[in-house]
Amino acid sequence: MSDNIYMGRALALAAKGEGRVNPNPLVGAVIVRDGAVIGQGYHGFYGGPHAERAALDSLTAQANGAVLYVTLEPCCHYGKTPPCTDAIIKSGIRRVVIGAMDPNPLVAGKGIAALKSHGIEVIQGVLEEECIRQNEVFFHFIRTRQPYVVMKYAMTMDGRTATSGRLSRWITGDQAREHVHKTRNRLSAVMTGLGTILADDPQLTCRIPGGRNPVRIICDTRLMTPLTSNVVRTAPHVRTILATCCQDPAAMAPFKDAGCEILILPERDGHTDLRFLMERLGGMDIDSVLLEGGSALNWSALDQGIVHKLQAYIAPKIFGGEKGLCPVGGKGVELPGMAFSLEPPKITVLGRDILLESGVVPCSQAS
Amino acid sequence: MSDNIYMGRALALAAKGEGRVNPNPLVGAVIVRDGAVIGQGYHGFYGGPHAERAALDSLTAQANGAVLYVTLEPCCHYGKTPPCTDAIIKSGIRRVVIGAMDPNPLVAGKGIAALKSHGIEVIQGVLEEECIRQNEVFFHFIRTRQPYVVMKYAMTMDGRTATSGRLSRWITGDQAREHVHKTRNRLSAVMTGLGTILADDPQLTCRIPGGRNPVRIICDTRLMTPLTSNVVRTAPHVRTILATCCQDPAAMAPFKDAGCEILILPERDGHTDLRFLMERLGGMDIDSVLLEGGSALNWSALDQGIVHKLQAYIAPKIFGGEKGLCPVGGKGVELPGMAFSLEPPKITVLGRDILLESGVVPCSQAS
Repeated sequence: MSDNIYMGRALALAAKGEGRVNPNPLVGAVIVRDGAVIGQGYHGFYGGPHAERAALDSLTAQANGAVLYVTLEPCCHYGKTPPCTDAIIKSGIRRVVIGAMDPNPLVAGKGIAALKSHGIEVIQGVLEEECIRQNEVFFHFIRTRQPYVVMKYAMTMDGRTATSGRLSRWITGDQAREHVHKTRNRLSAVMTGLGTILADDPQLTCRIPGGRNPVRIICDTRLMTPLTSNVVRTAPHVRTILATCCQDPAAMAPFKDAGCEILILPERDGHTDLRFLMERLGGMDIDSVLLEGGSALNWSALDQGIVHKLQAYIAPKIFGGEKGLCPVGGKGVELPGMAFSLEPPKITVLGRDILLESGVVPCSQAS
Repeated sequence: MSDNIYMGRALALAAKGEGRVNPNPLVGAVIVRDGAVIGQGYHGFYGGPHAERAALDSLTAQANGAVLYVTLEPCCHYGKTPPCTDAIIKSGIRRVVIGAMDPNPLVAGKGIAALKSHGIEVIQGVLEEECIRQNEVFFHFIRTRQPYVVMKYAMTMDGRTATSGRLSRWITGDQAREHVHKTRNRLSAVMTGLGTILADDPQLTCRIPGGRNPVRIICDTRLMTPLTSNVVRTAPHVRTILATCCQDPAAMAPFKDAGCEILILPERDGHTDLRFLMERLGGMDIDSVLLEGGSALNWSALDQGIVHKLQAYIAPKIFGGEKGLCPVGGKGVELPGMAFSLEPPKITVLGRDILLESGVVPCSQAS
């Protein structure tokens, strides 16, 4: 029971690193002796000390005979920092309680083995599910080296993302919108298409206190983003990548001058090849993408099999309208039995709105 | 505290009358003496004994000095049965605990006054909210004499009621579909439009053990329902009403021969006038309607202000498709700020699916 309490505390500490550690995992650690917390810490930023070291550095008493709670298996290899297992062994800690195993092939049980070989008792799997969920991005990225993609949209209770007049501001309330900004803070990048830029001219920044901006990715097959758009104008301050099939240096020049990066991609069905884009982003250590696209881009992303999670914000209102917009367009599936399957959704109430979050079940639709 | 327990039991008893008592209210009653239940009953069918009488008839001991728990204020007027207040007074019950006041102008506090004038202690408002919610249909109908309309649809997480190929079987799973049948059992009528008859040829019956079929209402402006459709073929067994603007006796004759009733209505925007239809149905003592329409009828119903509640069944899957169908079509609202407002939804998990239920906030869109 007390194991769960300390691991819960370690999880809460780990969350403080959200948006700062990517593509590293979120990790929190608590050191307990004689029922008292004598040290705690978390991985606070990429390249910074690991949670275990931060906790050891914060000790207010001798760690001899103490218990370490850590959300992820301690590392045993030299990366940007020396192995945490060494520091733990040296500290005199006699018991280590671990949330989730590290799926990183460089660790994957070797950290536990190292601890055990020094006579340290190791307990695994405490609040394991929570620890894995907290690091869904890391667990995905370490295995695939491609970003974990979350498709997000806000719609009315009748499934509309805009009225017949194509207006959509605002569908959801403050709490739902704040939740989106928290997600922008947490994930490495935000992605949208030319259509959304032209329709809404969004900033795609993170506007919560202390938040950090995600990298902005615009899918723009023919490089038609206006140079006067908010994303281009603010490119010197917020990293902005245009993903395009256009290879014309003259067309690219003004965007580069404005501070945008350009990724040239092969074409697929008349649009940028999103799978190729994901490979490229993965190679740039972008471990996660919040897809805030319109219906065409959303369909392409699903159809190309790059989406891992869906976030549907649902507002208690009705727009109606034959010509109203819907979150996912494109060709669509032919038969109901060919639908993209989602996991049973997690439900969060946000003021008057509801957020449904579901994992996308990898399925045959991804051709 | 024990008041809540006995009232909860009375509520559960009342629910046994679902679908059998309309347009009367659901009522349950429990009689308690010295901490023991000595009688209980419920209003079981229209024209049958009231809950209070059923409970008194079931007494296993003298009611002298007992407490009566009843979900709705006892009646004090002669209707199909003599006043319940008389029977309660005669029984020797010394305390009556009431859930909700009866909004029926023939009762509305007079039942309570009658009891008090005979020295009976009366407590009001125990589990009042639950008692009112259980009789939302009755509370509406007794005030307006028009049916309480529940608009129901099943859609995917991207707001689609059918694929691009117009196929919709099945979007939701068994538990959600069973829930629909329970609602068909509970409400007096089910209503749909010609489009749904042509597309799905539904039976619109209640297919749960012990269920009773709702009256079927088909909105068919020009009397184009096929005589071979399921609803027409089964009209001799299940009451079926065609609501139409067609006044041609020759066109009506075969439907009448098949056992259908025909309601002739004025035209409104090229369709049957739904407000007029609701008035007519109210006059026929149809107190509630489950609207299982397509997008055009759903819009008309909302636009004409006849919808009181929304039931959106949401399945964890994605259809996509520019040409996929949506639950509410028609003209739609122009601006987001002109949306039909819904109350924050009640959330029910039904297997893998989710049911969102919201009251429709009466608003300016109803022109």
